[in-house]
Amino acid sequence: MKRRQFLQGAGAATLAAGTLVSATAKAAPEYKWKMVTTWPKNFPGLGTGANFLAELIGKLSNGRIEVKVYGAGELVGALECFDAVSRGTAELGHGASYYWKGKSRAAQFFAAVPFGLTAQEMNSWLYHGGGMELWEEVYASFGLVPGAAGNTGVQMGGWFNKEINSVADLSGLKMRIPGLGGEVLKRAGGTPVLLPGGEIFPSLQSGAIDATEWVGPYNDLAFGLHKAAKYYYYPGWHEPGTTLECFINKEALEGLPAELQLIVRNAIRIANQDMLAEMTAKNNHALEQLVNEQGVELRRFPDDVLLKLRDLSDEVIAEEAAQDEITKKVFDSFVKFRDQAKKWHAVSEQAYLNARSL
Amino acid sequence: MKRRQFLQGAGAATLAAGTLVSATAKAAPEYKWKMVTTWPKNFPGLGTGANFLAELIGKLSNGRIEVKVYGAGELVGALECFDAVSRGTAELGHGASYYWKGKSRAAQFFAAVPFGLTAQEMNSWLYHGGGMELWEEVYASFGLVPGAAGNTGVQMGGWFNKEINSVADLSGLKMRIPGLGGEVLKRAGGTPVLLPGGEIFPSLQSGAIDATEWVGPYNDLAFGLHKAAKYYYYPGWHEPGTTLECFINKEALEGLPAELQLIVRNAIRIANQDMLAEMTAKNNHALEQLVNEQGVELRRFPDDVLLKLRDLSDEVIAEEAAQDEITKKVFDSFVKFRDQAKKWHAVSEQAYLNARSL
Repeated sequence: MKRRQFLQGAGAATLAAGTLVSATAKAAPEYKWKMVTTWPKNFPGLGTGANFLAELIGKLSNGRIEVKVYGAGELVGALECFDAVSRGTAELGHGASYYWKGKSRAAQFFAAVPFGLTAQEMNSWLYHGGGMELWEEVYASFGLVPGAAGNTGVQMGGWFNKEINSVADLSGLKMRIPGLGGEVLKRAGGTPVLLPGGEIFPSLQSGAIDATEWVGPYNDLAFGLHKAAKYYYYPGWHEPGTTLECFINKEALEGLPAELQLIVRNAIRIANQDMLAEMTAKNNHALEQLVNEQGVELRRFPDDVLLKLRDLSDEVIAEEAAQDEITKKVFDSFVKFRDQAKKWHAVSEQAYLNARSL
Repeated sequence: MKRRQFLQGAGAATLAAGTLVSATAKAAPEYKWKMVTTWPKNFPGLGTGANFLAELIGKLSNGRIEVKVYGAGELVGALECFDAVSRGTAELGHGASYYWKGKSRAAQFFAAVPFGLTAQEMNSWLYHGGGMELWEEVYASFGLVPGAAGNTGVQMGGWFNKEINSVADLSGLKMRIPGLGGEVLKRAGGTPVLLPGGEIFPSLQSGAIDATEWVGPYNDLAFGLHKAAKYYYYPGWHEPGTTLECFINKEALEGLPAELQLIVRNAIRIANQDMLAEMTAKNNHALEQLVNEQGVELRRFPDDVLLKLRDLSDEVIAEEAAQDEITKKVFDSFVKFRDQAKKWHAVSEQAYLNARSL
């Protein structure tokens, strides 16, 4: 159901039943909270996901908590959100934990690492595989409490103006791809380039870069990337189920009555599920539009390229993990879970999806 | 994180911070509700999922709603839950909507149909693809409000004592498989058998049946089915992501203040996500145990068998849909969504899982 209908449905139903609740139901806000975000205000899926969460906290707390959402740069810059919430400038932050690798390398594993976990696997690792406890441990030293607040699902490999027919084609490839994915590309002979959002389109169009990754059909279509590149490659090996996050200032959270603490924590869980559901539906439509209306050519990375990228990815994340104790602890838990899930999903999700499309 | 830790975490944190909330935080229950379930009390994953939901409603409502869970047969029989909640004997019911096909054929599409949607796709269809509105429409005429309250993920194909090497091997196969899956097997030449839970194991052991489906590694291991069959076939084409449900007596729901209506509806959403996360983690472990410790032999259904079952499945669900208007409406929405999701997941989830296991 549409989120607005969902949120308003209960109220409407109550009126329909003729009961009177409005006089008592709406309390004045006892807590006025700020949420700083790493996204432009109302950015499709991610920024709107932050709005959804803020609204949900308000509704579920019956108006006792009011959350005001700030787009990147409105109160603090995108990459200042972590510190801002850590020191209490805002009570809540919305982003992706791999942005904070400068604070803790371990943080990257709670967003996405190349050839890591899918959305379903991430949620399972976090809620029932020990992942959440590790994330809490990592963020505790910054005075923060983390929560998984959304997921993009498997992303796309990116937009290319050069064909990738073999590992050799990665050599010299200039691609906008940040983080661990960029390091993997570098080891494969490519040149990872860092560009702010606004420079991606012109750089791709002018040939300053050969390729860029972004998110998936829904976001990419809105961004217009199909107008600047020939081929749309899959799958997104570098971000196979990126978890978004909402981090909470620990002192602010603990200053809430117990029932409101639960409301905040659980609202985040609902936002987590809702974003994946929304992204899946929107990507369905957008892919259809890109292929049928915009004539976009879908290309799968060849096997040898995927195998090479996978080997390099395993090398890169293992090296990353070896650099400090807590990252090693998170890595061990993550990789153990991935290897188990790989076997189970080989006979369930993967086997089924393959059977359905025989 | 463990559910108990999750639910209790906030309280513990509050005490740690030295604030005093206990005097005001715990209200006496204003609403004492009953939840009747189609599961034996504490049945792994499904019955415990009902307990989790009941507990969560209590916590999120700050004790204003108290939900008592009844196992199948404690208050009403498993298959009487729908009617019991419809007439208000209990406020909540926990089951799977395909149990109520005698009430409405359309109900089957909100649980699982052969070669239908995966868990991620079901959630997307329900929350962002129009599915939830249709489900509400179907249940409204029974005075019920539905909610998706859990998901098993892709199930296993079942336990077999006969090898399935080609379509011909389905002929004469006596298999315990209920519902639409059973109808598909029948059209493939097999003999679907209906057996209550307690008779499955002895029937498989004695050879009275050749095969049975159940759920997945976690439930199947607990049930001991590996002791009565040689081969464990995959994938579970007949139940590719079964949604469990919590249905609410509409009048009871509308009798709650607006904020508590929201709490109940949203607690169900959390339970929905949590069960899939739990099932995934538990299936990971259980599959490992079955294969490594119990020596279970995994077998994939051959391509021609899967293709035959898929064609027959499409035939069966289309015939089912043709029988009444509302089922047709649900079917049209479901199939349209499936066909879109199939294309999107071919380049995302499916392509990624295949790349990871190259």
